[in-house]
Amino acid sequence: MPRIDNFGAGPAALPEPVLRQAQEGLLDHEGCGMSVMEMSHRGAAFRAIAERAEADLRALLGVPDDYAVLFLQGGATLEFAAVPLNLAGDGAHADYVVTGAWGKKARAEASRYLDARLAAGAAEGPYVRVPPREDWDVSSDAAYVHLTLNETIDGVQLHDVPDLGDAVLVADVSSCFLAAPLDVSRFGALYAGAQKNAGPAGLTLVVVRRDLLGRARPSTPRVLDWAKQAEAGSMLNTPPCWSWYVAGLVFRHLLDAGGLDVVGAANRGKAARLYAFLDESGLYENPVEPASRSVMNVPFALAREGLDGVFLEEAERAGLVGLKGHRSVGGMRASLYNAVSPDAVERLLTFLADFERRHG
Amino acid sequence: MPRIDNFGAGPAALPEPVLRQAQEGLLDHEGCGMSVMEMSHRGAAFRAIAERAEADLRALLGVPDDYAVLFLQGGATLEFAAVPLNLAGDGAHADYVVTGAWGKKARAEASRYLDARLAAGAAEGPYVRVPPREDWDVSSDAAYVHLTLNETIDGVQLHDVPDLGDAVLVADVSSCFLAAPLDVSRFGALYAGAQKNAGPAGLTLVVVRRDLLGRARPSTPRVLDWAKQAEAGSMLNTPPCWSWYVAGLVFRHLLDAGGLDVVGAANRGKAARLYAFLDESGLYENPVEPASRSVMNVPFALAREGLDGVFLEEAERAGLVGLKGHRSVGGMRASLYNAVSPDAVERLLTFLADFERRHG
Repeated sequence: MPRIDNFGAGPAALPEPVLRQAQEGLLDHEGCGMSVMEMSHRGAAFRAIAERAEADLRALLGVPDDYAVLFLQGGATLEFAAVPLNLAGDGAHADYVVTGAWGKKARAEASRYLDARLAAGAAEGPYVRVPPREDWDVSSDAAYVHLTLNETIDGVQLHDVPDLGDAVLVADVSSCFLAAPLDVSRFGALYAGAQKNAGPAGLTLVVVRRDLLGRARPSTPRVLDWAKQAEAGSMLNTPPCWSWYVAGLVFRHLLDAGGLDVVGAANRGKAARLYAFLDESGLYENPVEPASRSVMNVPFALAREGLDGVFLEEAERAGLVGLKGHRSVGGMRASLYNAVSPDAVERLLTFLADFERRHG
Repeated sequence: MPRIDNFGAGPAALPEPVLRQAQEGLLDHEGCGMSVMEMSHRGAAFRAIAERAEADLRALLGVPDDYAVLFLQGGATLEFAAVPLNLAGDGAHADYVVTGAWGKKARAEASRYLDARLAAGAAEGPYVRVPPREDWDVSSDAAYVHLTLNETIDGVQLHDVPDLGDAVLVADVSSCFLAAPLDVSRFGALYAGAQKNAGPAGLTLVVVRRDLLGRARPSTPRVLDWAKQAEAGSMLNTPPCWSWYVAGLVFRHLLDAGGLDVVGAANRGKAARLYAFLDESGLYENPVEPASRSVMNVPFALAREGLDGVFLEEAERAGLVGLKGHRSVGGMRASLYNAVSPDAVERLLTFLADFERRHG
């Protein structure tokens, strides 16, 4: 079967050249007689893979030298706990800006370790916008201010991080990581599950300013302690080697493609095409306020009841998969990650138009 | 280059037929038009992979129905914290039998959450034996008794778990998991990093008796809460899909090979050949008491000083890699995991004999 158009929200489409490279070397990585899956993480071959991946990610994202880059496990959800454990002592509080389902989860998990105040947004959905800066109630003594830059489920994106003075900004960037340039220097820490734009599931990236390291609570499991992982080059214990390797291939692929400016422009173009179509359509609707719409994840509902099942079946028959919305909100969602080509988006538009003609 | 003989301690050699299968389907898993690395973990294709892997593991290891099987992340080192967090409340104590470097680390991590008593073994190495049962000081009110069934670094294995009455036995089985049959019903919980016999790094297996679930401390990060992961089918958040998939291929491969009785017999044969050779040699020595020797990890030292570098160089030239001992103990180590064939062990013996003739 030919490769399909995969609009899944994650694990998501990966660049085909990356997959081909991983496939070619799977039994024998660069003539060393074994698979990357079989290598000691402390041997020369894997060390080269690990170091190159970090160097390429630093180049791609423009990570300043005073930031550590960590290749971890457990997903953003484990970082929801790691953030307060690493950055806030007993009795501290933190400010959470909640603009979607993931920010809500991050706050709930953090609430088990500190007072995780709702500084902006809403405790409950539906989420359709990022509130304007004047509605943010950020306290001057918060250990950190937590943002979810792109809400994968709700399709709400914070496009311009407002000036919050000296606050330590911490952001879950899972679903917008490497989708466009990002000024790392504005943040104290960034974290992302890899399984959107960066690589396979099982790898979690953390980028953290070094002066914030070393504050972890005594009760922090060692594996979750960013300072200890930074000291150990993310190898406090065996890292997720294969996912790290494939992520490295993705970083190199994105550099070869021209870097994040080029990638970001392509992504804006894809999203603009889809939103314009949805807004003109009589059948499909996206509920998010235009200024807060996500470039990566585009949820939409069908205005006519009872059509969802037919839509998904016909889409799949047309070679378009991963369009089902998250089970918590229903409806549809098209994720337009880096590896989703403009051509794939055109095929989606053709299908949407055709479906509307027949069922609208 | 042909495939090499890999005696690494982990990540370690994987069965070649498994790697070939992973390679063939890498861009298009069973005709679904995408890689396993690109699939939603909640979609039908990955659900089938996940369920089959669990069913095959249950069949292979004979896991009773009243045990949950979890496919997690973070390695055994993260479980060092998860064990006390899941099994012991505030003020509890646990008994640790420490017969090597990993047991020592497990105890140190647990000590941050409870009184982790040294019930047997030694606080510090060198470790060369499992003390006899009469030297174990196991308390009747310990929350659990922790064992490391096979010590990967020291090459010390607990071959017969003594009767400890009603104690809840918890065992790190990372480097002996699936190397031979194991009576799961004797344990409250087992855990293993996959990267020895079970699959690629980035996957951690936990097998836990269901009546022990639901006791996690309130401060346990949700991702580490075994009960929540069991409820969620190990998908509280995105799991390490590729490693789970490859582990499933390994489970199927071991079932096809005749199961753990057959595998265990082959492993005993390989280890017996190597230990017999080392014991007869004048150059090589293994320090572990015969009754406590590991079937999987065979450390050995060269009796003549200054030969280690030459040994490793010549071994690599002969196509034998991964023989360097752990940096904490030095010397050499041959790991004889399932995917290391009897032929590979014969090639190792030939090299050892030849090297001894020339340098002994």
